[in-house]
Amino acid sequence: MQAALERWESLCSGSGALRFVDILLRGTGQVMFQNHPLTGLLFLVGIAWGSWAAGVPEVFFGGLLGLVVATLTAMWLRVDPAGLASGLFGYNGVLVGLALPTFMAPSPLLWAYVALGAAVSVVAMLGTANVVKTFQVSALTAPFVLVTWIMLLASHALTGLDGSGLAEGAKIVMLDPAEANPLDLGAFLAGVAKSISQVFLKGDMLAALLLLAGLAVSSLWAAAAALAGAVVAVTTAHLLGAESTLVSAGLLGFSPVLTAIALATVFYQPSARVVLYALLGTVFTVVVQVAMNVAFVPLGIPTLTAPFVLASWLFLLPRQHFTGEAEP
Amino acid sequence: MQAALERWESLCSGSGALRFVDILLRGTGQVMFQNHPLTGLLFLVGIAWGSWAAGVPEVFFGGLLGLVVATLTAMWLRVDPAGLASGLFGYNGVLVGLALPTFMAPSPLLWAYVALGAAVSVVAMLGTANVVKTFQVSALTAPFVLVTWIMLLASHALTGLDGSGLAEGAKIVMLDPAEANPLDLGAFLAGVAKSISQVFLKGDMLAALLLLAGLAVSSLWAAAAALAGAVVAVTTAHLLGAESTLVSAGLLGFSPVLTAIALATVFYQPSARVVLYALLGTVFTVVVQVAMNVAFVPLGIPTLTAPFVLASWLFLLPRQHFTGEAEP
Amino acid sequence: MQAALERWESLCSGSGALRFVDILLRGTGQVMFQNHPLTGLLFLVGIAWGSWAAGVPEVFFGGLLGLVVATLTAMWLRVDPAGLASGLFGYNGVLVGLALPTFMAPSPLLWAYVALGAAVSVVAMLGTANVVKTFQVSALTAPFVLVTWIMLLASHALTGLDGSGLAEGAKIVMLDPAEANPLDLGAFLAGVAKSISQVFLKGDMLAALLLLAGLAVSSLWAAAAALAGAVVAVTTAHLLGAESTLVSAGLLGFSPVLTAIALATVFYQPSARVVLYALLGTVFTVVVQVAMNVAFVPLGIPTLTAPFVLASWLFLLPRQHFTGEAEP
Repeated sequence: MQAALERWESLCSGSGALRFVDILLRGTGQVMFQNHPLTGLLFLVGIAWGSWAAGVPEVFFGGLLGLVVATLTAMWLRVDPAGLASGLFGYNGVLVGLALPTFMAPSPLLWAYVALGAAVSVVAMLGTANVVKTFQVSALTAPFVLVTWIMLLASHALTGLDGSGLAEGAKIVMLDPAEANPLDLGAFLAGVAKSISQVFLKGDMLAALLLLAGLAVSSLWAAAAALAGAVVAVTTAHLLGAESTLVSAGLLGFSPVLTAIALATVFYQPSARVVLYALLGTVFTVVVQVAMNVAFVPLGIPTLTAPFVLASWLFLLPRQHFTGEAEP
Repeated sequence: MQAALERWESLCSGSGALRFVDILLRGTGQVMFQNHPLTGLLFLVGIAWGSWAAGVPEVFFGGLLGLVVATLTAMWLRVDPAGLASGLFGYNGVLVGLALPTFMAPSPLLWAYVALGAAVSVVAMLGTANVVKTFQVSALTAPFVLVTWIMLLASHALTGLDGSGLAEGAKIVMLDPAEANPLDLGAFLAGVAKSISQVFLKGDMLAALLLLAGLAVSSLWAAAAALAGAVVAVTTAHLLGAESTLVSAGLLGFSPVLTAIALATVFYQPSARVVLYALLGTVFTVVVQVAMNVAFVPLGIPTLTAPFVLASWLFLLPRQHFTGEAEP
Repeated sequence: MQAALERWESLCSGSGALRFVDILLRGTGQVMFQNHPLTGLLFLVGIAWGSWAAGVPEVFFGGLLGLVVATLTAMWLRVDPAGLASGLFGYNGVLVGLALPTFMAPSPLLWAYVALGAAVSVVAMLGTANVVKTFQVSALTAPFVLVTWIMLLASHALTGLDGSGLAEGAKIVMLDPAEANPLDLGAFLAGVAKSISQVFLKGDMLAALLLLAGLAVSSLWAAAAALAGAVVAVTTAHLLGAESTLVSAGLLGFSPVLTAIALATVFYQPSARVVLYALLGTVFTVVVQVAMNVAFVPLGIPTLTAPFVLASWLFLLPRQHFTGEAEP
């Protein structure tokens, strides 16, 4: 693996086109905090499969478009070269590009809208990073969430875009207990796998395996955190009596998976304390996900990965209390 | 009083158990910014009475549970010892523990939920403090508000928790003028007293007297500010034509009471200017309370003390304009 | 022009009353970032005309009251004299004073409410400035937006104030395509002009010309940015299929106009890159405006200039990437 990586690196050094591809791959890997081209490649294969299997190949195309436009925008804005090279200006773009066509019907105007969103995601990344660096945390997927929320909300009032994949605003009511049924083993396993693949807005078990493989080639620790996060999320959501179809579709687990990886990625010297802290953070992310699902019912847009961003910021801000266990 | 306090302090020095009790008491006192064990004791008696009188003793139990869990979590997270000893990591926990059982029916899962919320309130306290210290203000009850909002919102979609004490989401409509009737003297006095007791989510006149006594043993100035804040709040709300039943139940006054104490606690050299500024802040807190009540109608959760947090941050941020009159 | 300005300045130096008038005029000019008394005077004439033409002279009176109260409050709070002299503590007050009577019927209590809001706008200005200076951006109209949102929301539940000019909360639904009709040239030109006058909550073409003239006497560059921003906004909104009556009333363009001026005011060395960046920011402000219009449907209050504030902060935060082209 290391030898292949060095070979790839030397190829990239000699070719601007390959270097650009390398940045795109790393940008995809950064959705789950991995600065590794093979991770990005496996992620892209997973997204492509997930899109094709769900009969929406345009979603994969949107992701690629967002990734390329965001990366080009970052170059045009002369961002920090080290950040650019490690893909930090691509991951929000690929997510914007996946999210918009997931909820809107394809049309020429949609692709222009994706390009606009991907370009703005870079501005939002620079702005968010400027703000949160004051508090020594990173931007996470906040730029993606902010830009995509705005663009989805606007589509309700723009007839040039067909946002018929979005719900209309509705009234908040109590969940009917009949919606929270026992999960059998199959539904449990599906929930775990799809909690991972829903990070890229896909409910697909093979895609989940490809994403796990992508994590593993970069960091076994990250892959283990993702899997553990998914198990914790599905278990917690089920014990609290959440809607079973949401649990088994992975829709309550993708934010906790990201929280688990984020906490595991920052704390480099795992200890019992760190594991318990990360567990607390992951369990709380499930509650945040359910809460935001409720709060967004009147708005008619999805939460995206905002529960992960909110919970992870909350749990990363006090990380000086793990001095000696955390990265300086 | 001073001698008794020294005696108590020397007892605590010799006993880990008494020291722990001391921290719990001070944590309760910090809900109204008082670092004093007798204040905390009187507050706890007031809450116990208010819970018993309202037929919900489980609310008092929830408060104790939240207080203990938050304090233990803070120890586990190795927080700043001086802050721990003065109760700064307990006040959000006791409030989380009082709020959740106020709106949800008791069950084993509820107590686990309270413990989760109390533990996370400490993380939220550390995180919020990290952010707001940049702007030289303190966290106030923002950690309590944030964590409890999330947990109450989530309960709408969790069948394991019975949140039947919460309203469902509803449509915002104009208040019918018939709802704003003249207040007679009895209703006025009830409104003033309950504005104080509602700080601990109780509408009870004896509890209000116990809370005032608790403030007075620590600071007569704080007790006077609380009383003055309550009078200003009830008067302002009534003059603006707010719903009379809310006014006389103290539900528009608890945030202004906290604002009045907060501004009085920070500005140590009272002057005519400071008093006028605190008055402006207290009046505006009433408007913020009414505004947030409206904004939260579609969400089906209460504002908690967010109006206090928002208005007090607003009025504390520019406090350098009271240099010479304010604590450095 | 320069000679007249110097003559005026020398008159002001010798008279406290004229100096106060000068501060009021500059405060009005600062709504569009211009520190120039003649700009303020032309703006006030434009507002007066717009209010009179629309049959609501009380709106102009409210604006004057807010301007005076805010300026006096700033003096009382002993704000930075240079900021006071350049009108930085008046622009939020004049906007509060224009906005409240636009949505509420006149009454003695309304004028007290305007005075309260104008006074609090100064506190909010100091507080917001304290926070955002950390990130090297300015407060923009955030204090006006925050204070006015709170006061409008509250009016739904205050029978002393007649907020019958506000919509009630409603359900978010998709826009009917029939609402997005072709714009003819007349509607296009009206949309451009009214996008400028709506900065002061007026849909009036003569007012727009007076505002443009006011900008031009201070900065031709700012006037050109305002006009270009309006053209871009109307075109973008129409191409995306926004509601035609909103477009031609200027209601989707006033925030983009302000964004265009803000970006043009900060970047002192225009280049192709800067123009393209400002264009991107202006186009995105249109999307933010439409999105916030949707999000505010359940709340029953208008967005005010929040889309401008949000988008401009987003695009101003990364301005170090235009070093050499931007003001240091």
